[in-house]
Amino acid sequence: MSLLIRSSYVSHLNHFQFLPRNSKSSSFPDQIPSRFSFVSSFNHNPFSNLVYKRNPTMQSASSMAVKSSLIDPDGGELVELVVPESQIELKKAESESMPKVKLTQIDLEWVHVISEGWASPLKGFMREDEYLQSLHFNSLRLKDGSFVNMSLPIVLAIDDDTKEQIGSSRNVALVSPQGDIIGSLRSVEIYKHNKEERIARTWGTTSPGLPYVEEYINPSENWLIGGDLEVFQTIKYNDGLDHYRLSPKQLRVEFDNRKADAVFAFQLRNPVHNGHALLMNDTRKRLLEMGYKNPVLLLHPLGGFTKADDVPLDVRMEQHSKVLEDGVLDPETTIVSIFPSPMHYAGPTEVQWHAKARINAGANFYIVGRDPAGMGHPTEKRDLYDPDHGKKVLSMAPGLEKLNILPFRVAAYDTVEKKMAFFDPSRAKEFLFISGTKMRTYARTGENPPDGFMCPSGWNVLVKYYESLQESETSAKQPAVVAA
Amino acid sequence: MSLLIRSSYVSHLNHFQFLPRNSKSSSFPDQIPSRFSFVSSFNHNPFSNLVYKRNPTMQSASSMAVKSSLIDPDGGELVELVVPESQIELKKAESESMPKVKLTQIDLEWVHVISEGWASPLKGFMREDEYLQSLHFNSLRLKDGSFVNMSLPIVLAIDDDTKEQIGSSRNVALVSPQGDIIGSLRSVEIYKHNKEERIARTWGTTSPGLPYVEEYINPSENWLIGGDLEVFQTIKYNDGLDHYRLSPKQLRVEFDNRKADAVFAFQLRNPVHNGHALLMNDTRKRLLEMGYKNPVLLLHPLGGFTKADDVPLDVRMEQHSKVLEDGVLDPETTIVSIFPSPMHYAGPTEVQWHAKARINAGANFYIVGRDPAGMGHPTEKRDLYDPDHGKKVLSMAPGLEKLNILPFRVAAYDTVEKKMAFFDPSRAKEFLFISGTKMRTYARTGENPPDGFMCPSGWNVLVKYYESLQESETSAKQPAVVAA
Repeated sequence: MSLLIRSSYVSHLNHFQFLPRNSKSSSFPDQIPSRFSFVSSFNHNPFSNLVYKRNPTMQSASSMAVKSSLIDPDGGELVELVVPESQIELKKAESESMPKVKLTQIDLEWVHVISEGWASPLKGFMREDEYLQSLHFNSLRLKDGSFVNMSLPIVLAIDDDTKEQIGSSRNVALVSPQGDIIGSLRSVEIYKHNKEERIARTWGTTSPGLPYVEEYINPSENWLIGGDLEVFQTIKYNDGLDHYRLSPKQLRVEFDNRKADAVFAFQLRNPVHNGHALLMNDTRKRLLEMGYKNPVLLLHPLGGFTKADDVPLDVRMEQHSKVLEDGVLDPETTIVSIFPSPMHYAGPTEVQWHAKARINAGANFYIVGRDPAGMGHPTEKRDLYDPDHGKKVLSMAPGLEKLNILPFRVAAYDTVEKKMAFFDPSRAKEFLFISGTKMRTYARTGENPPDGFMCPSGWNVLVKYYESLQESETSAKQPAVVAA
Repeated sequence: MSLLIRSSYVSHLNHFQFLPRNSKSSSFPDQIPSRFSFVSSFNHNPFSNLVYKRNPTMQSASSMAVKSSLIDPDGGELVELVVPESQIELKKAESESMPKVKLTQIDLEWVHVISEGWASPLKGFMREDEYLQSLHFNSLRLKDGSFVNMSLPIVLAIDDDTKEQIGSSRNVALVSPQGDIIGSLRSVEIYKHNKEERIARTWGTTSPGLPYVEEYINPSENWLIGGDLEVFQTIKYNDGLDHYRLSPKQLRVEFDNRKADAVFAFQLRNPVHNGHALLMNDTRKRLLEMGYKNPVLLLHPLGGFTKADDVPLDVRMEQHSKVLEDGVLDPETTIVSIFPSPMHYAGPTEVQWHAKARINAGANFYIVGRDPAGMGHPTEKRDLYDPDHGKKVLSMAPGLEKLNILPFRVAAYDTVEKKMAFFDPSRAKEFLFISGTKMRTYARTGENPPDGFMCPSGWNVLVKYYESLQESETSAKQPAVVAA
């Protein structure tokens, strides 16, 4: 999500209206002034999904299934793939004799994602029929004929040697980058990894310089292996941030504990400035006006792979905590947690994944901004994606019908009021748009952004980070004093 | 569709079983030996679509709608966009004052396709929401929440000047390559044409050398214009083949006239050899065994743009007519007609379009082979698509549920029996696979293919074509005798 929240993209969505909870849908729309528009996941039926659902209709028969009252996980039941305590030793012993598949760090992040059910109903790395549906249709069809959204291929690549070692074995053991067997993949299927086609259909370009492609896909090999995943324990990173890594199940419990009657998710991979905060606080206000009694914000920074010039996770988490300490966001009605997925920077394709995963975590409202999951074109001087496409594609995506999409209004720095405010086109010249690049330049050069752009304690976190970066760059330029 | 019909791709589909019409679906599968497998459009429910439908459930209220008893057009009603006779003069006069959009030959082919309802329920060139759904989901959602398949973007490109001339006009006139106003586009919407993204998401590659891209997309400009199409009359080509160009409406009438109780469509862009014929005749036999009384073959060569080294349409039509004259295919139960679409060579994405358009023409069975709509990679020594993906993607595609997919068995030249036959792996060495390239080489060099590969009269058509090609090449190499 871009730091820059800008421009006039709400206008074309004004056929979506604001709907108070429990109201009769046909009578209200024209009577309620709306500061932003609510978009149900598909625009032909804008009201059908805005009604508060206390009794979801898709409940599974299993009493073990984790459910919140707000929104059902995709497939009706949250996937959880951690082996029960009592079976761990047996399973570990069994895995010792299986062919081994070595995971990269990003593979491990996907193991984390799948094992906790963020990708429900996906139960492992994709087999070919799931891969093809994801690639061509951005969705999977379930046995009952309904669709769940599945826009990113969640796949595991292996090389020729590994394929040969696996031979006709049905199951393989998964080995972490640190060398530990962390679980297994069962009833495996191996199929060709056409990297060019995967990249073209996922990113809409095959240009060099796509971060996830360069980091992960290009170095990967020519086969994909799919199967049913089992892990011996929840994936931990031991980086001091694991307490932030709530699983979808834990989040649903937390929402229930807080007696949330609406959960609105905000995906981000950047520091929170006051424009973001304005938007999140305004969303809560609007939900209250709709009749919700206790809307809860899920502030949900992405924790997996990000590109080199993004602010690292630990710095972002510190910045986020300052924003809450400072009262810019209300800790009583905000849950900060880490979304463990790696980042693709795949724009309209990826934003669907970001939204879908939050359904599984129990969020029934999803905030979407300008150019979600976008970036500059790696080789051309333009945005890689049309900044409006993410929101449009999201609003039409198969399988996201039950999620309420909240496209957000433009916030910018109001130079008269000296604070972040919703952009007022009638006095456009008084607004200043501060891009992510501009913000990083401020922090890097030690220059302060305008007052009211970000809470000072949060800003300090960034300044310190960039200072430390410069120090390490400077010291890296010193001649080495210890020869090899 | 490749001339080469080959390999073992039926094996993984053997969970799809052969189902006699009107049988109880659960009891039959294991009892019936099947030479090929019937695949319903989605493999989770293989039997649901194999039941003969005499009373379709999606009938529209309009009594004017064209319907056959076999399968409903997408959206329930066949789109027809030819202005009624009584309004033509009025509409023509009106169009004179509209801004003009000049069409290329391929644009005109699409006008033809849209105006006759092959792309039903599409009513014109795509607006952006349709374009995005096509690009990302290969389908369009209808107002009732159901999906129709729509895998290829059907769009019209314009340049900056044309966009400027259109300004805020709601309607534009469409001008044929010959300079005639042939219709109009109403309530237009102009949006950006990101060619790189369109190509990547449609073809799964951005490699140079894709025929449709080189011919049409690369030279096109930076804007797309969508809107509701009207044409003043049915598109005609005056090439002596217009009588072959039956519209979906005409085909449906023809099927009803012939009292067809099943229609199986065979898409092709190549000459018909005896392997194809074997397969088509075998399909009919199987349908008869299933209980159908009068299965009709729609032999449906593609008539729009094809790449330079494909056999031209007029030659193919002559070859096809010889095959029928010769009795290789039975004229009584075969309808030969031209499918007016241009060819994309976009493999799994395009085969969905080929199948979907035949639904609209009234076919309820669709034959799919190895590597449908595929070609060699333009810059690498491999197939552009996995030869099995077309069939797999087709069987899972949203919106094709009501169509019965028939993946075909491998035919090759049996050197012992001296005829095209279904490949028998137990005596693999006795079979000869004759590729399209090989066939063209035979024809070009005047060498005869093995007896029984193709009926002699059909073969002669090809030989003559390649002779004429060589003659014109030779004469092109002669020094020009008339100076300018």
